Amino acid sequence: MLKNTRTAMRSGTLQRVCKNGGRLFHSSARYPLGIAFDIDGVLVRGGQPIEGACKALQQLFVDPQDPCQIRIPHIFLTNGGGVPESVKALELSSLLGVKILPQQLFLGHTPFKTLKDRFESANVLAIGKGEPCTVMSSYGYRNVVSMEEYVEHFKDIDPLAKYKKWSTNNDIRKNTKNVYSSNKAIDAVFVVSDPVDWGRDIQVLCDVLRSGGYPGRSAGNQPYLYFAADDLEYQAAFPVERLGMGAFRIALESIYNGISKTPLVYTSFGKPSVPVFRGSEIALLKLAEIVKPDVKHGNFARLYMIGDNPYTDILGAKQAGAPWFSILTRTGCFKGEDNHDQYKADLVVDDVLEAVQYIMKEHKIELLQH
Amino acid sequence: MLKNTRTAMRSGTLQRVCKNGGRLFHSSARYPLGIAFDIDGVLVRGGQPIEGACKALQQLFVDPQDPCQIRIPHIFLTNGGGVPESVKALELSSLLGVKILPQQLFLGHTPFKTLKDRFESANVLAIGKGEPCTVMSSYGYRNVVSMEEYVEHFKDIDPLAKYKKWSTNNDIRKNTKNVYSSNKAIDAVFVVSDPVDWGRDIQVLCDVLRSGGYPGRSAGNQPYLYFAADDLEYQAAFPVERLGMGAFRIALESIYNGISKTPLVYTSFGKPSVPVFRGSEIALLKLAEIVKPDVKHGNFARLYMIGDNPYTDILGAKQAGAPWFSILTRTGCFKGEDNHDQYKADLVVDDVLEAVQYIMKEHKIELLQH
Repeated sequence: MLKNTRTAMRSGTLQRVCKNGGRLFHSSARYPLGIAFDIDGVLVRGGQPIEGACKALQQLFVDPQDPCQIRIPHIFLTNGGGVPESVKALELSSLLGVKILPQQLFLGHTPFKTLKDRFESANVLAIGKGEPCTVMSSYGYRNVVSMEEYVEHFKDIDPLAKYKKWSTNNDIRKNTKNVYSSNKAIDAVFVVSDPVDWGRDIQVLCDVLRSGGYPGRSAGNQPYLYFAADDLEYQAAFPVERLGMGAFRIALESIYNGISKTPLVYTSFGKPSVPVFRGSEIALLKLAEIVKPDVKHGNFARLYMIGDNPYTDILGAKQAGAPWFSILTRTGCFKGEDNHDQYKADLVVDDVLEAVQYIMKEHKIELLQH
Repeated sequence: MLKNTRTAMRSGTLQRVCKNGGRLFHSSARYPLGIAFDIDGVLVRGGQPIEGACKALQQLFVDPQDPCQIRIPHIFLTNGGGVPESVKALELSSLLGVKILPQQLFLGHTPFKTLKDRFESANVLAIGKGEPCTVMSSYGYRNVVSMEEYVEHFKDIDPLAKYKKWSTNNDIRKNTKNVYSSNKAIDAVFVVSDPVDWGRDIQVLCDVLRSGGYPGRSAGNQPYLYFAADDLEYQAAFPVERLGMGAFRIALESIYNGISKTPLVYTSFGKPSVPVFRGSEIALLKLAEIVKPDVKHGNFARLYMIGDNPYTDILGAKQAGAPWFSILTRTGCFKGEDNHDQYKADLVVDDVLEAVQYIMKEHKIELLQH
């Protein structure tokens, strides 16, 4: 079984191993319950684990190095992103000292998978830090162009380009053979992760969106516009919260509505939107079914959202309703003594370790000594 | 006199030469009349002279290479900037083939000179493309720091910095010996020219403005905030207008008002604001008095604003009122057949050469063959 487990981890197909039988789920697990962890401000800050985070996650495994030995189904539910789920899983595994699978990552752009059938052959512009094109290609979108490549087709589209001696990222479309042709209109824009060059990106998006998809042409139907999240602010390494994708959206929208005859139309994903919590339930259910395939699982009795942001995490869980239970940590955006005034969590703790210890006690699950 | 003229041109002090006498003002000039030229979209587009621009300007001189032989007082009134007036004068002279003096440049930030007494010793943050610190130092501000230098004092203030392998400008404060100390609060922010890195600049301005001048401190009185202009869009090399400083201001304001308890307070200069036209009248009057010191000049009988932007140039002249007369060209923002629907110019022409020919004919000034 160990050999099959290693094969499964390499390919990421936990399902195959589990269907081959074997004791894969620790008998002491109380079930069904699941946990969704926010990442920034709960497990990680500024690229480093928050104190207690590794210990907290270890409690969710019989063997933290063996993803098949998960005790409690858990996912990592973040509005961040910019790389494929498989890459983020490796990064988090390395940082937090436990083996995390791609299926456990629910990034801001993960729901974009669900739109693939609609836009599979459409001309898509993907923007944001990291590798937005690679992300979209990994979901099956076949005609994706990055902002960096797109602007090369339009001379002087960014009058400030000469002042920027930079390259914002190295994203080369890895999984598509198509090269964008400059006579094609853009059908849809996906803001996959936080834009880096706001000035250029806002300018080009205004051009594309108010011209029916092709800068300089007369107005046509606005291309579809999707945002992976709508965080106004989030906790990063700096002691004061930083502006997020929601701030970019506000900037774009306020400018666009001042220069276009019709207001900007868009869809934002990300916490606190309810569809994201529904999607998380499905992801957790799939993990539970994979881990214990011989048991039919209905809805979860209890789902925990552990987060630091009262608006995205706590309000999100509250709006999603039962079986969600919200736990607010003091290691990120929120630092109050009691509870948040406006979005009251079901429980407030100092950190994620305290949150996990609470959950274990609540469900009478034995704490393991790793 | 020629020797004195050359000395004057090097030092920029036209006044000294003219007071030494000599035939410095062509006797055929009709007077007083003055002209304010917009630059982008009227004389220049994308760094190149617009057809007819050089010929048009030559008509304003007896000898286009001798600024003392100006026939008609004229200035260059633009919302752009980023370099001292002396630098812009050299650049325009070289591009347009006529000798232009620093006193003839009325840039977006030129009015910042008038605030120097108030902020001479204050801690000032200067931002925008080009050399914003050098500009402010040239006006006499003694404690100016650029955004590039400022952010070095605050680790992780821009979480996207690692994605930007760039340097937005090389502005080194040239005329001040002070080095910014990281414990000093900023008293005033001057947006001197178009910001290059919108994401970083909006983030840092939000930090500075909502914390009484020091990121991370608890809220205090908002530092003063000045914008050199408020253009929503302007004509550059790209066929469609580009977003200007007004768009940046809208982005900053909309975000700031979403995260701050009190709304953003600021002052914008630039056309179409009336004070800028009053300042232009003074600049033109000074040129007229210098050129013909033996004549007492009252107000001008006619002042022409030649521009391509109906909102900044034409509305500006209309709001300023008599003696301003607005001429709209079709070489920039405006391309209509008749007149602008909302901001009707007194005259619409194809280009600046036609505008100048109209003025000459109107005032019975002989066209010269250069």
